[in-house]
Amino acid sequence: MKEIRIGLVGAGWMGKAHSSALLDAQMLFGPDYGVAVFEMVADSNEASAKEAQHKIGFKRMTTDWKEVVSDPDVDLVDIATPNSFHYEVAKEALNNGKHVYCEKPLSISAEQSAELAELAAEKNVVNYVGYNNTMNPANAYVKDLVETGKLGKIMKFTGTYDQDQLLDESLPITWRHVNKLAGCGALGDLGCHLLSVSQFIMGDIQQVNAMTSTIFPKRPKAAGSSEMADVENEDIVTFMAKYANGAAGTISASRVATGRKNRLAYEIQGTQGTVCYDLERMGEVQVYFHNDNEADRGFRTVLLNPHHKGYSAFQPAGGISIAYNDMKILEVHELFAAITQGAEYACNFEFGYKIDRTVDAVLESAKTNTWVHIE
Amino acid sequence: MKEIRIGLVGAGWMGKAHSSALLDAQMLFGPDYGVAVFEMVADSNEASAKEAQHKIGFKRMTTDWKEVVSDPDVDLVDIATPNSFHYEVAKEALNNGKHVYCEKPLSISAEQSAELAELAAEKNVVNYVGYNNTMNPANAYVKDLVETGKLGKIMKFTGTYDQDQLLDESLPITWRHVNKLAGCGALGDLGCHLLSVSQFIMGDIQQVNAMTSTIFPKRPKAAGSSEMADVENEDIVTFMAKYANGAAGTISASRVATGRKNRLAYEIQGTQGTVCYDLERMGEVQVYFHNDNEADRGFRTVLLNPHHKGYSAFQPAGGISIAYNDMKILEVHELFAAITQGAEYACNFEFGYKIDRTVDAVLESAKTNTWVHIE
Amino acid sequence: MKEIRIGLVGAGWMGKAHSSALLDAQMLFGPDYGVAVFEMVADSNEASAKEAQHKIGFKRMTTDWKEVVSDPDVDLVDIATPNSFHYEVAKEALNNGKHVYCEKPLSISAEQSAELAELAAEKNVVNYVGYNNTMNPANAYVKDLVETGKLGKIMKFTGTYDQDQLLDESLPITWRHVNKLAGCGALGDLGCHLLSVSQFIMGDIQQVNAMTSTIFPKRPKAAGSSEMADVENEDIVTFMAKYANGAAGTISASRVATGRKNRLAYEIQGTQGTVCYDLERMGEVQVYFHNDNEADRGFRTVLLNPHHKGYSAFQPAGGISIAYNDMKILEVHELFAAITQGAEYACNFEFGYKIDRTVDAVLESAKTNTWVHIE
Amino acid sequence: MKEIRIGLVGAGWMGKAHSSALLDAQMLFGPDYGVAVFEMVADSNEASAKEAQHKIGFKRMTTDWKEVVSDPDVDLVDIATPNSFHYEVAKEALNNGKHVYCEKPLSISAEQSAELAELAAEKNVVNYVGYNNTMNPANAYVKDLVETGKLGKIMKFTGTYDQDQLLDESLPITWRHVNKLAGCGALGDLGCHLLSVSQFIMGDIQQVNAMTSTIFPKRPKAAGSSEMADVENEDIVTFMAKYANGAAGTISASRVATGRKNRLAYEIQGTQGTVCYDLERMGEVQVYFHNDNEADRGFRTVLLNPHHKGYSAFQPAGGISIAYNDMKILEVHELFAAITQGAEYACNFEFGYKIDRTVDAVLESAKTNTWVHIE
Repeated sequence: MKEIRIGLVGAGWMGKAHSSALLDAQMLFGPDYGVAVFEMVADSNEASAKEAQHKIGFKRMTTDWKEVVSDPDVDLVDIATPNSFHYEVAKEALNNGKHVYCEKPLSISAEQSAELAELAAEKNVVNYVGYNNTMNPANAYVKDLVETGKLGKIMKFTGTYDQDQLLDESLPITWRHVNKLAGCGALGDLGCHLLSVSQFIMGDIQQVNAMTSTIFPKRPKAAGSSEMADVENEDIVTFMAKYANGAAGTISASRVATGRKNRLAYEIQGTQGTVCYDLERMGEVQVYFHNDNEADRGFRTVLLNPHHKGYSAFQPAGGISIAYNDMKILEVHELFAAITQGAEYACNFEFGYKIDRTVDAVLESAKTNTWVHIE
Repeated sequence: MKEIRIGLVGAGWMGKAHSSALLDAQMLFGPDYGVAVFEMVADSNEASAKEAQHKIGFKRMTTDWKEVVSDPDVDLVDIATPNSFHYEVAKEALNNGKHVYCEKPLSISAEQSAELAELAAEKNVVNYVGYNNTMNPANAYVKDLVETGKLGKIMKFTGTYDQDQLLDESLPITWRHVNKLAGCGALGDLGCHLLSVSQFIMGDIQQVNAMTSTIFPKRPKAAGSSEMADVENEDIVTFMAKYANGAAGTISASRVATGRKNRLAYEIQGTQGTVCYDLERMGEVQVYFHNDNEADRGFRTVLLNPHHKGYSAFQPAGGISIAYNDMKILEVHELFAAITQGAEYACNFEFGYKIDRTVDAVLESAKTNTWVHIE
Repeated sequence: MKEIRIGLVGAGWMGKAHSSALLDAQMLFGPDYGVAVFEMVADSNEASAKEAQHKIGFKRMTTDWKEVVSDPDVDLVDIATPNSFHYEVAKEALNNGKHVYCEKPLSISAEQSAELAELAAEKNVVNYVGYNNTMNPANAYVKDLVETGKLGKIMKFTGTYDQDQLLDESLPITWRHVNKLAGCGALGDLGCHLLSVSQFIMGDIQQVNAMTSTIFPKRPKAAGSSEMADVENEDIVTFMAKYANGAAGTISASRVATGRKNRLAYEIQGTQGTVCYDLERMGEVQVYFHNDNEADRGFRTVLLNPHHKGYSAFQPAGGISIAYNDMKILEVHELFAAITQGAEYACNFEFGYKIDRTVDAVLESAKTNTWVHIE
Repeated sequence: MKEIRIGLVGAGWMGKAHSSALLDAQMLFGPDYGVAVFEMVADSNEASAKEAQHKIGFKRMTTDWKEVVSDPDVDLVDIATPNSFHYEVAKEALNNGKHVYCEKPLSISAEQSAELAELAAEKNVVNYVGYNNTMNPANAYVKDLVETGKLGKIMKFTGTYDQDQLLDESLPITWRHVNKLAGCGALGDLGCHLLSVSQFIMGDIQQVNAMTSTIFPKRPKAAGSSEMADVENEDIVTFMAKYANGAAGTISASRVATGRKNRLAYEIQGTQGTVCYDLERMGEVQVYFHNDNEADRGFRTVLLNPHHKGYSAFQPAGGISIAYNDMKILEVHELFAAITQGAEYACNFEFGYKIDRTVDAVLESAKTNTWVHIE
């Protein structure tokens, strides 16, 4: 039983979610994959830091994150800060030889992420980005269908991530609408989740061609205020993609997609089969096999079951709902298995960088109205 | 090319529908299966008879149906009268050696239908009851799945036919609510369509146990009237059934099923597979095969296609909508093929009798609150 | 902050599930609803008891459950034994004035359950049966639709709970197939979950009329054995029901329903609306409102969201998957709120008794082939 | 009752389909909208012309289409030739002052179509292009939702038309793969149907940005041949679009979309509502209204019913399947109503031109890899 001493940077909602997932993972998988020790928590807001210390049970707290990343009793730096701080914290943690677990996105620019990925590769540490959708048993199943060739040669990927949480135009400006803090709009907030799934299953994108729309270009400065502020980034993004594997892609994201609550949906067409998924129906995958008998052929509604990676951690039989949050539990389990057992993992900093460079290319394309090559 | 001279009894909506289907069938299947000659039409309402003569092109018309069933130039008597007259007309037509095509139900009592079935078996004539749902390519496909054993031993049939056309309590009394004319309520109007599908696919029912409800026991005597009349029969019927093949059945029908427009839906569970169908999605069948690979197993949404009997008359490729009315075209085609080529057909008078005896048993069970054995 | 000292009887899988749910509930709802103290655990198997003590952190362990129910430092007796022991333990716990939390079913006979319900009503204690499906936000939403009259007068309930876990005939005999241990088959194992939902939403059933089938009447005595043993109870049960509210019911359950994994599905038809639910798609409810504009009217696919009771404990926005296990968390939260704040709860022993008396009536009806009146 | 004397050019499958639809329309709508007289049929293949004359009942036949377009006893020239001849025949028919009914597409280049549209506008004749999907009651309903503002400001159109009929790589080269005959590939064959729906509901597209793929660049010269020929056009096309109404669009078509049989599917997102449609489920439209009560809000599955334009010609009540072919019946009915009653119609030659100019722009964009402006 190995102890992993955790230094959490950022004591907000996501920091707590990480800690809670660590506890749940330990209950599900037992101590062989490492036992979390809540060593130290940092938050610039002292009250938040104290509250997290109290609630989660950290031994120590600080308002200076640099103490965490340099502390000799911290094995793993867990970064749950606002996105714009990821780069700085991760860099110093790596330089101190810590394992790093960074909430998605890796940073808010491809350049920063490239630097972090390179640095992480130099150091002999686990470098993990929290793209939790890659842990979804449904996506693991689809990846398997693609990689084993059951779908034949992949021809087309069509995906969208649509929500309508920002549909109400009276909702005020937040950090999400400000590029310095968020990097971009729907693309960063929602699209990069979809991109992580695409990267995981389909591999690299080589070219993109994008357009964006901002449906509500101004929002109140505060709730109820009549003073308006500019929304700096896109409500909707759409782009075409060319994959390294030869497939064509169409990808979009919207934070104002009326009626859509959590629609991370995609379709992959191959010459031997087609598969569809929609996160609003998390527990089922639609798959069609061209070689099925013609009279009996049709899209199969496959309910997630223990034959799909990750599912059996939660349920012994198929068709039983697992939670969105369970993907975070699988994620921290994979992180711990990487640290204690050297297990492989997909979402390293290189992976995170690939998402971020695609995001940058999409934004550039939307600005220049041209195809943009990646790398 | 053989001519079939038709004597139509009943010039209402259904009579026209039969004639129109005959023309369409000839366009689709060509003259080898017989060419309809519209010889004579009868309707007690002279205006109706004349209008039908004019519109459909009958050579002669009459207000006395007995002239039709005895006319030497009539080969096929087509019965499209109100249900309560089927018995009388069919009997005399059979006694005159005519082929008989009777719209469903065969009669409004099992006793009458038994007599007709026996009489028809004695005569060397085609005796066809218009249970058009048996012509649905979807039901033909399901019958095939059951009969070839692809679903294994059949364990359970669950079916309902739900509509909400009589949900509005201000709708006045019609013939449907009067037992002398209708025999019964939702059971006869909707349920017997479902029973025809059940008989077609599952075979005989041996025992039933039923209950009925009348949600609106009184309705206005006429639209807008404040005088009320008694509804004599059931709005909802539900019964359990034991099939000769050993399966258990649950069957229901409702004419006040809020939100349901044309939901003739059923599920058949076998030890090797399960199949589901819903007429509101006429073009697709759901089927599950237990022997599919466990990771990839799920209900398949099979779109109707040329591999399903009847479909290719209408479309050369799968997934294209065919119409509810197309089932009537397939029906008259089968009728003509029986007359001109001696082709086999399922819905003979014996079949019609089996539906009617089941209906009678269900009504008796609902009255006596006991299991009722059939035959 | 009030401490609730727990005495767990039965250290198997369900006992651990209860304990784990208690911890999760505390994290989600905070200490105001009571803090669980793991006081003592009993299991006749000493190793199990010790393991549970160690893993969950109970202060004390014993192999004699009577020590738990009489211990002065136990506030709440948590019963997670095999079903056939519920009665005995619950009775003595009640007699000792303990709060009692009993996993479903309350007992394995209506008579025992009636006695427990009466005894519980005499004592001033919380008496809770763990019918977790009543905690499902979907079912809470449906109950609300029914009780507020949005569906009008309720006409019909149709429900089934189908799984195919026992479809494989090579699976050996287990306690589930032996009536002394299980009471009955699919009805007790699956059907009573559906009955709990029915009772919760529709209220009392007054009459039932049932039939049962045993598809595999013999099973191997042990895995791989060629010696066969009798299956004593039903693989499939189907019954008609008459509700106190005037509605008709059709209810079934099967443990050999090919292709169905967790299909607890029902439809409720009212004169103003209809609602459908299927646990295989836990996150969505189908509802139809007759008063919607005719051109735009149809079944709505309502994704669970914070407007549905219980959901907001897990997610701040709609359309995000919650887990089947989350219902257990809501259950123990309700239990604690009842103990510490006197909050109301539906699933008391009287509720548990009503399920059990319906189960008994169904079994009697299947034996006698008659309608059986309840109370 | 006005007679409309028809001169049919092209006696193949589509010519017969037009004639059959004319007969059906007359049965459904009666003679007030004009009665078709089958005056003359032309086909360069004499046998085909004669067969059509015989089967459909044309008075005269010819192998020279110029006789038809100049015949004084022809009121309406019906063009059902291969696509590449549409231009020539339509031009001369217009110049002779005939009403013209041209099967889609109007021509195989935007330039030709522009000329035809201009010419048609000069003459006082009905000029109708057979984009039958615009007749679908579902699309009429969606157009109504958009135009009445029920969906608010339109933000996004996403559409695809996918089939897998050319998935089998052993299928030989046909005219569809040769640009001189077909103009282009999946875009012309399938995409232009979707474009007609888009034009009908969404109005003009102003800019496009496209990419194409050819999955099978070579096919056998003939069935079973080992000699291969080049496929000259796209199997898959994808493009982004900017609409004149401000909406963003993503449109694609594939003739090798594994598992898709007739998936003309689209989603339109507006600020007040979203609507989805899929021709594989022809009888239902999904619509969401943001203003619905939050607890009860969800996509409604609206079954087509008499409140949707065109439906009531076929069925008196909702939820009953109408056929794909029924759209052609509605089309010729509209055509006749335009001729005899001056009724308005959407699919005039200007409409046909707009589809063709969009097709040309998409092809140009795919070649140049740039945004292409339309007009």
